[in-house]
Amino acid sequence: MSARPAVAADPPLSARELRARCRQGTFRGHTSGHAFGNVQANLMIVPQEAAFDFLVFCQRNPKPCPLIEVLEAGVPSPQCAPGSDIRSDLPSYRVYRDGKLAQETNDIHAFWREDLVSFLIGCSFSFEEALLRAGVPLRHIELGRTVSMYRTKVECQSAGRFHGPLVVSMRPIPASLVPKAIEVTARFARAHGAPVQVGAPEQLGIRDLQQPDYGDPVPIELGEIPVFWACGVTPQSVALASKSPFCITHAPGRMFVTDLRSDQLL
Amino acid sequence: MSARPAVAADPPLSARELRARCRQGTFRGHTSGHAFGNVQANLMIVPQEAAFDFLVFCQRNPKPCPLIEVLEAGVPSPQCAPGSDIRSDLPSYRVYRDGKLAQETNDIHAFWREDLVSFLIGCSFSFEEALLRAGVPLRHIELGRTVSMYRTKVECQSAGRFHGPLVVSMRPIPASLVPKAIEVTARFARAHGAPVQVGAPEQLGIRDLQQPDYGDPVPIELGEIPVFWACGVTPQSVALASKSPFCITHAPGRMFVTDLRSDQLL
Repeated sequence: MSARPAVAADPPLSARELRARCRQGTFRGHTSGHAFGNVQANLMIVPQEAAFDFLVFCQRNPKPCPLIEVLEAGVPSPQCAPGSDIRSDLPSYRVYRDGKLAQETNDIHAFWREDLVSFLIGCSFSFEEALLRAGVPLRHIELGRTVSMYRTKVECQSAGRFHGPLVVSMRPIPASLVPKAIEVTARFARAHGAPVQVGAPEQLGIRDLQQPDYGDPVPIELGEIPVFWACGVTPQSVALASKSPFCITHAPGRMFVTDLRSDQLL
Repeated sequence: MSARPAVAADPPLSARELRARCRQGTFRGHTSGHAFGNVQANLMIVPQEAAFDFLVFCQRNPKPCPLIEVLEAGVPSPQCAPGSDIRSDLPSYRVYRDGKLAQETNDIHAFWREDLVSFLIGCSFSFEEALLRAGVPLRHIELGRTVSMYRTKVECQSAGRFHGPLVVSMRPIPASLVPKAIEVTARFARAHGAPVQVGAPEQLGIRDLQQPDYGDPVPIELGEIPVFWACGVTPQSVALASKSPFCITHAPGRMFVTDLRSDQLL
């Protein structure tokens, strides 16, 4: 999920604390608002026989799928969070079978296989923190909502069995701050980078900005321009479009919180 | 090869002309000096069973191995040069077996298999053109030599079967132009990007700058600082260190010339 959902009610946890609580089964909420300044990541797990295709897909579509880390088959502990275990240290997971959501669960040890390859993919939380520091307001955060996301008519570059539409997130930005917003996010190539488009939703096949495909609608005020960034929901929608026989992802808004600091992505 | 060898004697060719002449067997020289402004690429071809490991290796080592394009198994025609054929459109190739150079050849149709996966990897020609445009002098080009390259004591991040030392290229830069040189090359993340180190060869395990492991020595003048960039020779040296059973690369200095313009790498 590339969205920053409503800030969690719990007091902010460090990355280690949050992962430990997930492992104990005592944290199941959104990860937004925790471990401020740490990189959070989308998770995608596929069988080894599909891993090369998915890795090529990411390489061909770096804006929606910027790779933070790829783990070797059967390896559950990423280098970006030593001592962690991606099978238990996220608040919630989704298991997909034959292109359909089969189950939501808090621990995937029961599904683990030695041939599973895990991908950690950058998330917009990193650039949203940078936007706020640079004085660019973000309406969905002000309103405590999830960012608006849209399935576009833009097809990703396909790779082997993987194909599907680009998903974008939209943030309304005051016209005079659009250049600043682009400048700041362009620095975070591994967190979706610069926007994919500014100001023309119809060219992306979006009919009504107030009817997002994922997340919540947010109002666009006079003098604001809708700006569109590639979104971390894309790999999940691609797994569905491609009817993947088996994959596991994080649940939306429940990201893997790494020990990397956002500025290390620069 | 991440080197710009002595400029070829032939009159400059366009990318298409150069590839056509390679295919006819009438061009076997260095590609430097041709198709100015076009992206040239290192080539690495490995069997499919090793391709995932190599792709992860590139993802973990983006400075020496910035990916321009990954072709699916058995596909010889890259998107970055429509109509081209990577089996015939380079001036010269090297075939490695069991970690040793087995053969040098001008056409690899005879070696082609449906399970071969081709990787096109960024090359320093792109950033050297940008450095020259920015007024940063490059001694090896002035002298018509190949850039100095060194095997360092820095180990790349390993991935599956692939491991080995980082290879760097060195350019002596006037002290006052070091910031400019870094600023300019940092923009070319897909052509090795910013340097890996400035001014301390001993920390890289380099004993004598005048005895490079590849390429030619170049003099360092008073007031100049040796600046080290990750080098496209790294994947070849890694294939050797990892004793790869079978791989094919371009011959040093004989790159694949794409239709991409360098500024498209930004």
